[in-house]
Amino acid sequence: MPSVKVQLLLTGNELMSGDIVDSNSAMIAQNLKDIGIELKRKTTVSDDLTLLVNEIRSLSTEADIVIINGGLGPTIDDLTAKALAEAAGLALEEHPEALKHLQYWCHKRKNLLSKQNLKQAILPSGCEIVPNNAGSAVGFKLSINKCLFICTPGVPSELKVMLEEEVIPLLTLLDRGDNKIHVSRFQVFGIGESKLQAMVDENITDWPECIELGFRANHEYLEVKLTTRNSDAKQRKEKYLAALVALLGDHIFHNIEKKPITLEESVISLLKSHRLQLTTAESCTGGLIASKLTSIPGSSTVFEAGFVTYSNEIKTKMLNVSPATLTEKGAVSIECVHEMAAGALKLANSNLVVAVSGIAGPSGETKTKPVGTVCFSWGRSNKINTTQLLLGGDRLAVQKTSALIGLDLIRRFLIDSNETPLYITEKQTN
Amino acid sequence: MPSVKVQLLLTGNELMSGDIVDSNSAMIAQNLKDIGIELKRKTTVSDDLTLLVNEIRSLSTEADIVIINGGLGPTIDDLTAKALAEAAGLALEEHPEALKHLQYWCHKRKNLLSKQNLKQAILPSGCEIVPNNAGSAVGFKLSINKCLFICTPGVPSELKVMLEEEVIPLLTLLDRGDNKIHVSRFQVFGIGESKLQAMVDENITDWPECIELGFRANHEYLEVKLTTRNSDAKQRKEKYLAALVALLGDHIFHNIEKKPITLEESVISLLKSHRLQLTTAESCTGGLIASKLTSIPGSSTVFEAGFVTYSNEIKTKMLNVSPATLTEKGAVSIECVHEMAAGALKLANSNLVVAVSGIAGPSGETKTKPVGTVCFSWGRSNKINTTQLLLGGDRLAVQKTSALIGLDLIRRFLIDSNETPLYITEKQTN
Repeated sequence: MPSVKVQLLLTGNELMSGDIVDSNSAMIAQNLKDIGIELKRKTTVSDDLTLLVNEIRSLSTEADIVIINGGLGPTIDDLTAKALAEAAGLALEEHPEALKHLQYWCHKRKNLLSKQNLKQAILPSGCEIVPNNAGSAVGFKLSINKCLFICTPGVPSELKVMLEEEVIPLLTLLDRGDNKIHVSRFQVFGIGESKLQAMVDENITDWPECIELGFRANHEYLEVKLTTRNSDAKQRKEKYLAALVALLGDHIFHNIEKKPITLEESVISLLKSHRLQLTTAESCTGGLIASKLTSIPGSSTVFEAGFVTYSNEIKTKMLNVSPATLTEKGAVSIECVHEMAAGALKLANSNLVVAVSGIAGPSGETKTKPVGTVCFSWGRSNKINTTQLLLGGDRLAVQKTSALIGLDLIRRFLIDSNETPLYITEKQTN
Repeated sequence: MPSVKVQLLLTGNELMSGDIVDSNSAMIAQNLKDIGIELKRKTTVSDDLTLLVNEIRSLSTEADIVIINGGLGPTIDDLTAKALAEAAGLALEEHPEALKHLQYWCHKRKNLLSKQNLKQAILPSGCEIVPNNAGSAVGFKLSINKCLFICTPGVPSELKVMLEEEVIPLLTLLDRGDNKIHVSRFQVFGIGESKLQAMVDENITDWPECIELGFRANHEYLEVKLTTRNSDAKQRKEKYLAALVALLGDHIFHNIEKKPITLEESVISLLKSHRLQLTTAESCTGGLIASKLTSIPGSSTVFEAGFVTYSNEIKTKMLNVSPATLTEKGAVSIECVHEMAAGALKLANSNLVVAVSGIAGPSGETKTKPVGTVCFSWGRSNKINTTQLLLGGDRLAVQKTSALIGLDLIRRFLIDSNETPLYITEKQTN
């Protein structure tokens, strides 16, 4: 549907004042991109009736479809319905379906239907309801000058559900014939976007144009997406998907069927299925690995204890790291993390361990060990592995990357991987 | 300057694709708000020359001032200069000052001035430079139809510096006479926006209209801001500021002169100035307090060790919590956290301790202890305090709030506060 012009109109004083950062429009753009629709323009206005009416009138002559986000709430500064009615020259009236939704929603939440809530059922005459299964604010749609306006709620959790259940299926229906979208998605840790693209260019030289290779990076992982737009290409896609999966190997940590996950979720779920317990011994990450693991509900069945051993003294006292190792090799050494891991395993009586010691900076570097030098030790008592890496970035980046690598090393251990991850191949210094 | 109409135009494909969330416009809005300018509309377009030119032409007849953000980079999809020149009917030419800036910047960074970089000196004929002291992309300003366009860089760190050093002073200059802005800011933990407003309404009943009480909430703290717009009001402001500071007491943890800080920064800096060492014993927060503390550079001088004791067994084994306490009172009890604190102090050989044990949920609640029940213990060996609170929210919220309260309790201990914080008055259950 490359010819359909979709625009976005956001409304809300909080979006204009800078009190909140607008994440809704990125969510809408990503969902539209998944079905091949590219947004080129969006406008944001405060809760001002004149501004909204002008904007709607002008958009109605420019776009085929306008998604309006926000202004559906119960308070008087929620003006979307009023503005659309005024721009379309329609009356406002109580919409029976919207009223039913509000009654149902209040009943479900054991609330009384207030006068304020009732305002949410007052919509432009003749509009159609777009159901909201996550909140009281019902959505609706309405055409003005051949442009279809779809009104969605500003609360992100409600918008998310309405996009997935209603808006995207609706827009996909407007799509024609053989132009249907097929998407496969998975998550990768330890390979950046440009590196991954270079690997594909080098190893899968006949990558066809009809299969779009897309990336969505967040700070920690890379989401990889293969998209095709017709059924012929769908079959070809399976072949290239298989080649890509083989190329990336165990760097892929999750095949997205429903939703993306985190590395800590992956580790906790592997620990549960293997009925194993993990402990942590952290120096430079300062408890970050433990706090990531324990952020996952149910983690207490597989995580009993963690040790934050920041000083040399406590490494010896608690984890039994030998003073000789600390003097001769230093706290940031393969030998030290190995002893930290062995000590933590014994103390916590766990099956598995991950230990980290490094120089997060800005101070603390030595001639042979610059800021970013981080040693890892992981495994079980009869199989403790170690590596020393040189990581980039500032203090927070070194800490964050170290925590993620620690989690990934345990994940690879749990799936019995015999591959060497790129972060070791490229960054190992011992 | 309430009559000056300022609008915002953002440009960038990454803003439209949803690959990044736009935080620049919130930054701009907040800075404008500080000098009393309210934004009512912003438009975002992809890197498309026609779209940009149309937008600029239409804005030039609607607004007095337009801040353009983005599109100043060296690549061909950076189109701001070209679009402005086209909209204004001006030629593009090399700007000597911009060239000088690029030469200086490349010299400073020991880079060669590339052909691509040189493009950044090609600007609309007759425009004026807006210096960029944080990057290569020089800003510039230009009037079309009496509307002043100010072009700023898309990189947030560069935008921040240019706003503070150039754009805001420029817009303040446009301000007239006795209308100058005076601002005082400080940070509060443990009181929300509406509670604080209610406290003011109740206790400072003659709050004058000429002093604006503003709030900027992030997820963890509240920033409070008193703004006045003329010199008479400035003197009155001092009086009400003093009343407010007295009312909020030790809930105020930082008086913002330069920039906001975090609670962990405040704790680390207090520990340093008192030459004291802190240890942590964490159950439900799972290492979050330790990882917050160790995220601060130099924390190793005041933080030696932390214990994440998730299971009962390890609480006894490591921190010497008595099995009888665990059986009779439970792991989430005043008695248990007291013993955890005492054990951790002894083991880590520290001066100060904070211990936390609670039910973060979703599972684990009992009849007498619902999800959100969290026990805290803090102080030094001869003065260990305890409290049991009932906190709201889901697992992550309980963990996060518990970590922040743990830090705040230590901060209050360090400043020798004899006040009881509101979160104890309102949420204590023991």
